[in-house]
Amino acid sequence: MITKSALAHLAKSADSYAYDNETLHIRFRTAKDELEKVVLWIGDPYHWAEGGLDGGNLGGSDAHGWIGGNEISMILEGQSEYHDHWFAEFKPPKRRSRYGFILYGKENEKLLFGEKRCVDIKDPKTAESELSNLSNFFCFPYINPKDVLKTPGWVKETIWYQIFPERFFNGRPDLSPKNVQPWGSKPTVDNFMGGDLWGVIKKLDYLQNLGINGLYFCPIFTANANHKYDTVDYFNVDPHFGGNEAFHALVKEAHRRGMKVMLDAVFNHIGDRSPLWLDVVKNGENSRYADWFWINSFPVYPDRPKSEWDFWNFNYETFGNVIEMPKLNTENEECRQYLLEVARYWVEEFDIDGWRLDVANEVDHEFWRDFRRVVKGIKPDCYILGEIWHEGMAWLRGDQYDSLMNYPLTQAITDYFALDDYDKETFMSAVTRSYLMYPKNVNEAMFNLLESHDTTRLLSLCNGDKRKARLAYLFMFTQVGSPCIYYGGEIGMDGRRGMGKENNRKCMIWDENEQDLNFKSFIHKLIFMRKSHPEWNVPEIHWYHLEHPNVIAYSRGNTDILINNSEQVVTVEFKGNELQLSEYGFYISGIKDNDMF
Amino acid sequence: MITKSALAHLAKSADSYAYDNETLHIRFRTAKDELEKVVLWIGDPYHWAEGGLDGGNLGGSDAHGWIGGNEISMILEGQSEYHDHWFAEFKPPKRRSRYGFILYGKENEKLLFGEKRCVDIKDPKTAESELSNLSNFFCFPYINPKDVLKTPGWVKETIWYQIFPERFFNGRPDLSPKNVQPWGSKPTVDNFMGGDLWGVIKKLDYLQNLGINGLYFCPIFTANANHKYDTVDYFNVDPHFGGNEAFHALVKEAHRRGMKVMLDAVFNHIGDRSPLWLDVVKNGENSRYADWFWINSFPVYPDRPKSEWDFWNFNYETFGNVIEMPKLNTENEECRQYLLEVARYWVEEFDIDGWRLDVANEVDHEFWRDFRRVVKGIKPDCYILGEIWHEGMAWLRGDQYDSLMNYPLTQAITDYFALDDYDKETFMSAVTRSYLMYPKNVNEAMFNLLESHDTTRLLSLCNGDKRKARLAYLFMFTQVGSPCIYYGGEIGMDGRRGMGKENNRKCMIWDENEQDLNFKSFIHKLIFMRKSHPEWNVPEIHWYHLEHPNVIAYSRGNTDILINNSEQVVTVEFKGNELQLSEYGFYISGIKDNDMF
Repeated sequence: MITKSALAHLAKSADSYAYDNETLHIRFRTAKDELEKVVLWIGDPYHWAEGGLDGGNLGGSDAHGWIGGNEISMILEGQSEYHDHWFAEFKPPKRRSRYGFILYGKENEKLLFGEKRCVDIKDPKTAESELSNLSNFFCFPYINPKDVLKTPGWVKETIWYQIFPERFFNGRPDLSPKNVQPWGSKPTVDNFMGGDLWGVIKKLDYLQNLGINGLYFCPIFTANANHKYDTVDYFNVDPHFGGNEAFHALVKEAHRRGMKVMLDAVFNHIGDRSPLWLDVVKNGENSRYADWFWINSFPVYPDRPKSEWDFWNFNYETFGNVIEMPKLNTENEECRQYLLEVARYWVEEFDIDGWRLDVANEVDHEFWRDFRRVVKGIKPDCYILGEIWHEGMAWLRGDQYDSLMNYPLTQAITDYFALDDYDKETFMSAVTRSYLMYPKNVNEAMFNLLESHDTTRLLSLCNGDKRKARLAYLFMFTQVGSPCIYYGGEIGMDGRRGMGKENNRKCMIWDENEQDLNFKSFIHKLIFMRKSHPEWNVPEIHWYHLEHPNVIAYSRGNTDILINNSEQVVTVEFKGNELQLSEYGFYISGIKDNDMF
Repeated sequence: MITKSALAHLAKSADSYAYDNETLHIRFRTAKDELEKVVLWIGDPYHWAEGGLDGGNLGGSDAHGWIGGNEISMILEGQSEYHDHWFAEFKPPKRRSRYGFILYGKENEKLLFGEKRCVDIKDPKTAESELSNLSNFFCFPYINPKDVLKTPGWVKETIWYQIFPERFFNGRPDLSPKNVQPWGSKPTVDNFMGGDLWGVIKKLDYLQNLGINGLYFCPIFTANANHKYDTVDYFNVDPHFGGNEAFHALVKEAHRRGMKVMLDAVFNHIGDRSPLWLDVVKNGENSRYADWFWINSFPVYPDRPKSEWDFWNFNYETFGNVIEMPKLNTENEECRQYLLEVARYWVEEFDIDGWRLDVANEVDHEFWRDFRRVVKGIKPDCYILGEIWHEGMAWLRGDQYDSLMNYPLTQAITDYFALDDYDKETFMSAVTRSYLMYPKNVNEAMFNLLESHDTTRLLSLCNGDKRKARLAYLFMFTQVGSPCIYYGGEIGMDGRRGMGKENNRKCMIWDENEQDLNFKSFIHKLIFMRKSHPEWNVPEIHWYHLEHPNVIAYSRGNTDILINNSEQVVTVEFKGNELQLSEYGFYISGIKDNDMF
């Protein structure tokens, strides 16, 4: 029986979008394992009357070169815990489409699922009338090129490296803060180690040798905290990082090596030491910037010791409840223009290649629409990447971001490989969902990561077991989207975050005796392999069914990959051969020696 | 058992939106009749850690005045064919929310439905960890006032009257086209009857007496066809309609009477006699306007008789396949600015109160975003109404339209009352869906209609049975959204449309001997009642369960309404009383004499 209550489709969503200026992608959800097949019934609304219902000739031509209704078999794109997900593509000759879904059940049912009703169409007469009853069809009215999300082509070829500048390398000790600690000291919320951008320049050879071709920087603009999220001056790189001069040199050096540069756009809030905020503190509602913030009453600081403030009920909106980070009012026109000018400045004057948007989900959509216009207006292939941890389709409709930081995939991978919190089926379902949640053009430009300045490091989640960490990296490197390495991940750095601990922001280890060079060699090979297999970036995953509870198998393009997520040696039958996989081992077809790792 | 595959929710959609700057609305879908109750579990992500799970105190206060998780019972907002739809509202104190759904099944199940997983939480320990596991929660990150859809308050108090100007009243015969036909001639695709705006002014008393307070005009700008959808000059009212002078006088007279004026924005395409298009015809790709259209090859007209052209494969994109209506390229910056200037001109210079957007779904979303900025920038309570016949949430996210022409409701009403195509349950389900398809702030400003220049008239669908037509009007007038009367509908005009027939565009009948004054009196009373019951505009419908297959019963505010959609006299028990309903009769509580109609 077909569970009708489970059938779902929404036009103009991740279920129904223009992949490019000519191609429509259509997805449809049914309950799991109930359908024999699903057919997309689609055509031009103004031409429908001339369509026919005879199977054979439906995609064919009539006197006008084309007819109304087309039957397109949908493929089973994936399965999640309770659902089958079906997919088809269609190129509407006049850019217009109306459509429904014809469902063939396993018990000989035949239904038409439309926008308004689900009807039994087993009777041919009913079928004839229902299949030309456009008022019950879904509609993708017109593919307007301007609305189609175009993501930068270079992203899918990029291997990112995330740098927390204060902790990467101290290239000019003379620029370091006065209270700088010795390199390698234990990180605290407010200590400094002296990393700077001159240091990054000195290490570009290292990164290039590793195979990195994209640098993603945590904030670099003048600010107080070591993480620089409390911006003081959006137009100047922090002097301790080397100022604009260092950044200019860095971009030049990076570009010369074919590396892209992405900066962190912290536009949700500002630092409480910025002149804008200090002006409001001083002048209250008479400040020119009073409306640049969300202030409930003046003066912004009540007349009592800071330690006595109620951290929940203070006088102004902030990032989180961090009193040092007043939230910017992007609805104020001057404030908006100011921030858009920042967006313009670094793209136009410094030729950066991407903006990563901090706390992207709490800033208004209208701001991001303007942001996209400004940035893409200058540099159409500049990458706009949102920091959103939950489902984020509302920002990915072509008008705002190119893609997101893929934290749902991060979580699935770490839960399965590192924490053993997920069983195999839950993991596969979570990964499949991460594919189906977004349009394929979004997936192709997705930003994948296993750890960041905001998370505990992978290796700590693995309790130090590098075999597990290797599997997590292998899995990420063979998924759609560009993979990112958080500085030091490649040499086996660990570190926990949370409860006041910031050990995920330790100083980069440069002494090769303290680096795990085996792990680095593994990462290096993964990067090399990924670059030699652009087809690994296909926005679809095909899982093989394997009985073994701890072995997953999937294909990427023509490559088959098997991963043994257990500490036992395992033998499985795969495509007629017996394959032995070592503890936490893997097999990649077409690779001569899987032990090369 | 709970059908897990049927559970559905999508953040930032019609399921999850900001109703105003403080209030979040959340909807949740389950399979029909399976749940005992549903609880929305919601709170501030930064405060969650301090929440508790003890039922009693969850909405209460802690040391900081408020705690993380709140339990809010969801109400059953409606039922559709296969689903129950649940609703709750929440005012996040800091504008941020994360949430999940706690489901209590009829067989003692207890589940948490989150963004990633649906988990059994019967075990209290599991419940405790799952109910504070934010990573599985949906997210409405922040209510940004700028993104909240604000619809004009006056719309919900408006009774619209749609005027097809060429057919309403000839106020100045000296302005009529030379080939004008006698008033009341049979309408054809290309004949003229001489209606004009001076005529409308003369009939404003008539409309005011009827109770009309909103005028919606089919196109009035200079054009060739009688319907004026083939615009020649966007900046001048057609001379046969009286030019800008007449329109200026009309707006003044209408506003003096408290009537709003809405114009038709035909921006998808232009007429083939417009100077812009003629320039392209003449100068081909050298025309300044060559890129204002979607032209595949030049010259635009091939060198052979028009009659021989393939109607599907001509050289340029059009509206539908109408060769006389070349599609405008709203992606061309000059063209875009030109049309935005039109939008500005009529609001700023003539003080119009609304724009109805023709073929709104085929113009790019970016254009409509700019359009909204321009129009609302001048007149924040100008009404932006899209012509979209299918589901249209993609245009209603706060950045484009205020609302839509409610054709899905039109179809449900005509299918049920006029055509007898729907049974009672299908009808109730369709109406319920029309409520649940959109945010409540959209519903409140919905534009409801039974007929238009684009449809066969209601009375013809009723096969002339005015008792049926009365029920359709009664139903529309007691729904959320502003009702519209298509000129002449109030006096019982009929007329079919389609297959070359345009009898739905007949001349307005002004001879009272030929008007159905009984019907008019009925409509008049409906208008009066609607105006005295603003609470009828609540965006929720409550159906009473009545056994009788042909009687529907529902409440609007404190009013109960029963409708007997059959030609039998019917007695039903309602709230403990026996109620007799005549053939196609009805009962409205609180009305002294239901025979007043």
